[in-house]
Amino acid sequence: IEPETFRNAATTMIDYVIKYHKEIGNRQAFPDVEPGFMRDLLPSDAPKAGESWEDVYSDIERVVMRGMTHWNAPGFFAYFPTASSFPGLLADILCGGATCIGFSWAASPSCTEMETVMMDWLAKALDLPQCFIHGGHGPGGGVIQGTASESTLITLIAARSKVIRRELSRDPNLSMYDVLSRMVVYTSNCSHSSVEKAGLLAMIEVRKLDAGREGIVTGKTLQEAIDEDKKNNKIPTFVCATLGTTSCCSYDNVDEIGRICKCEIEDIWLHIDAAYAGAALICPEFRHIANGIQRATSFNFNPHKWLMVNFDCSALCSYLSNSANVDALYLEHETQQTTIDYRHWQIPLGRRYRSLKVWFVLRMVGIDGLQSHIRRGVAEAKYFESLVRKDERFEIVFPVTLGLVCLKLKLENVINEELNRKIQDDRRIHLVPSTVHGIYFLRVATGSVNCSRQALDNCWDVIREMA
Amino acid sequence: IEPETFRNAATTMIDYVIKYHKEIGNRQAFPDVEPGFMRDLLPSDAPKAGESWEDVYSDIERVVMRGMTHWNAPGFFAYFPTASSFPGLLADILCGGATCIGFSWAASPSCTEMETVMMDWLAKALDLPQCFIHGGHGPGGGVIQGTASESTLITLIAARSKVIRRELSRDPNLSMYDVLSRMVVYTSNCSHSSVEKAGLLAMIEVRKLDAGREGIVTGKTLQEAIDEDKKNNKIPTFVCATLGTTSCCSYDNVDEIGRICKCEIEDIWLHIDAAYAGAALICPEFRHIANGIQRATSFNFNPHKWLMVNFDCSALCSYLSNSANVDALYLEHETQQTTIDYRHWQIPLGRRYRSLKVWFVLRMVGIDGLQSHIRRGVAEAKYFESLVRKDERFEIVFPVTLGLVCLKLKLENVINEELNRKIQDDRRIHLVPSTVHGIYFLRVATGSVNCSRQALDNCWDVIREMA
Repeated sequence: IEPETFRNAATTMIDYVIKYHKEIGNRQAFPDVEPGFMRDLLPSDAPKAGESWEDVYSDIERVVMRGMTHWNAPGFFAYFPTASSFPGLLADILCGGATCIGFSWAASPSCTEMETVMMDWLAKALDLPQCFIHGGHGPGGGVIQGTASESTLITLIAARSKVIRRELSRDPNLSMYDVLSRMVVYTSNCSHSSVEKAGLLAMIEVRKLDAGREGIVTGKTLQEAIDEDKKNNKIPTFVCATLGTTSCCSYDNVDEIGRICKCEIEDIWLHIDAAYAGAALICPEFRHIANGIQRATSFNFNPHKWLMVNFDCSALCSYLSNSANVDALYLEHETQQTTIDYRHWQIPLGRRYRSLKVWFVLRMVGIDGLQSHIRRGVAEAKYFESLVRKDERFEIVFPVTLGLVCLKLKLENVINEELNRKIQDDRRIHLVPSTVHGIYFLRVATGSVNCSRQALDNCWDVIREMA
Repeated sequence: IEPETFRNAATTMIDYVIKYHKEIGNRQAFPDVEPGFMRDLLPSDAPKAGESWEDVYSDIERVVMRGMTHWNAPGFFAYFPTASSFPGLLADILCGGATCIGFSWAASPSCTEMETVMMDWLAKALDLPQCFIHGGHGPGGGVIQGTASESTLITLIAARSKVIRRELSRDPNLSMYDVLSRMVVYTSNCSHSSVEKAGLLAMIEVRKLDAGREGIVTGKTLQEAIDEDKKNNKIPTFVCATLGTTSCCSYDNVDEIGRICKCEIEDIWLHIDAAYAGAALICPEFRHIANGIQRATSFNFNPHKWLMVNFDCSALCSYLSNSANVDALYLEHETQQTTIDYRHWQIPLGRRYRSLKVWFVLRMVGIDGLQSHIRRGVAEAKYFESLVRKDERFEIVFPVTLGLVCLKLKLENVINEELNRKIQDDRRIHLVPSTVHGIYFLRVATGSVNCSRQALDNCWDVIREMA
């Protein structure tokens, strides 16, 4: 492909993206396609000779868009929003164009160092404790992971290593498998499925704590579970507390939980999964949700959700021990002792230059701009809550604190399930339901780039009509 | 950021990327920076107000490029090349612009279905066995992972699940930790460090098999290890064979190894790591390197290395059991039973629409174009080999089969280590050394987009001068 062809094609592609966002109001959030639809739209084999850009371009609408769930369509209120910003896109052009694979400092000093500085910018913007900052007083610092699931898994594995080392140093006759079999992870029954998955992958028992009607794990609940497990010779290893649960945007009591983790004779690793809500800490008025965070061992939030950094960019602040450290000669370099090799801080070896996206977004949007973006999403949720509260048939199920409104008809689950089915079939809006403590409800997530009062009015019209 | 500003900025960014590649010959492959260099170039905090695009743009050269290891510079022969192609870039603009997170079919039917079709296109282009094709006769199929490390880990975890289920179904009194403690993974002492890392993460003992002077694991070596382990009540669980080792591009004897894995009363999961060399199977004349592949349980290669698909794109062909399957209500959708939810085939939950890159590249470059690309890289290596063979001071350490030339002075290790240090300090070219069976040597990897005979002549001049 000649540079001039690329230049023209790239300009066309950029214009397509601009038009896509400008006219996204005409797109249905969830597509009308059946499983297997795409196989009929594509040849069964790759072409022998290269095709023209025009041929590929003309298939984007016909093939790709035909089956897209449009996460940024105004009718999309399903999962928490995923970022899509122009500065993020600009950075990704550079990242792809100047390809490097930054697994070690030497593989790309720029990629590693930008990441350490950007993680500090993020941590400071959120007013996180000094222990999470590279340029702080301790050994801590941040790393960009692909997803919150990976952040949970890598911290759990680090905690597992720590406990195995500790127990074996005490009793060298123990097998590490004996130790492993006694470990327990604690998390809420409202926490994300990726915590349970991390437990499965790490082969550690996950104990789900009852978060009650409010979806909140308290210190008392945790303490009781720990006490019971210790009586049974288990080893409490890791707590994953959530700030902003996916089901209902509830907040575990991190202040109480952190005190318990630190009060145990052996520290328990406290990981905070704030994948969604963490971004809101950029606004001082929401920082109270993270009370007690200074007792956490690690803290994770996803700039790719609500901080305008395009997917993937999951920020993990922690001091990760070298549990995943495996060296091979061809990765050695002279500065190995004085630099960070981020491959030890994550599951994969290779890594993209993702911090470019953070740099572009933080600079071009600024802290002020990101604060406005968060505040707009919260105001949208408050507005939607006010609409719901005017209709006596409905109730708000959980406090609306950020950009999620949980609502239901004041009737039993089956009716609400039927309402959900009708809304899905209608296709004008796309929601996903949830269940907490046996109560089934609808979730409306605000804050996507194309959300607006008008979009919320339409959403509410559809829900009422279907009700 | 207004669309018009974005349009202009994106055009500037595209032109920058074009210019970067056009003039990359002027860039030093490895940068002259010291650890910590970037902290002095950047403010300590993110800006409060957004800055202009021009301010950001002007810092790209000053900050980012200052510390880049240029993987596509003509002086870069270090790691295996990483792809950087214009079609890949075009696809990534679309991927970023129409952001979706395709963790389940419903989260983006298009993202999931394109991936199943593209994995079939790739498998057919490489003439892989039917069992690895979604549209084939069995339950198998492919998935795009981020990296080969993740492919190794996810298949190891699937194998672990399979063995635990099998053993517990036989003897329900067993603890899964007892079973785990008896499992063994086999791999070459020349295989990639990520295999050892996968073992650490999965908590399974990794037994490194002696690959001898030639860097090749034979069936005999494997069989002896298995026999010994079975006598000691161990459970042979997983073999990771490599086609195209990172150290010296050697090929384990997959034909012999596969027969053993299938002959054992309990099948042993055979995973083939062909991260680098797998791409060469697109050319019929190189398919002999994968003799016996039909007995593999899973097969992995990285289109982001040698098939012009920008990082990250690691293709894993296998039938992955549901070992990582964790469901939560908010991920349910009506078609759950009839569709693939790729989140169960990988470690993270979220995933990008990476198959777009494969689609764009396969269509715009075509099978013919990719074959030419591979053949060019191999011809470059043969050419470089011919240069080395003319100089009696040097020897070629391993057969040159694809795009890697391993060479050394016919002298002891310390002299070759000194030669390597001189080359690094000189900075005109960037290599990484390796060691196999106690022999230290230099590696010259060809095949990057900007490699050429002239670049190889320069490389050889530098090596001889330093020698």
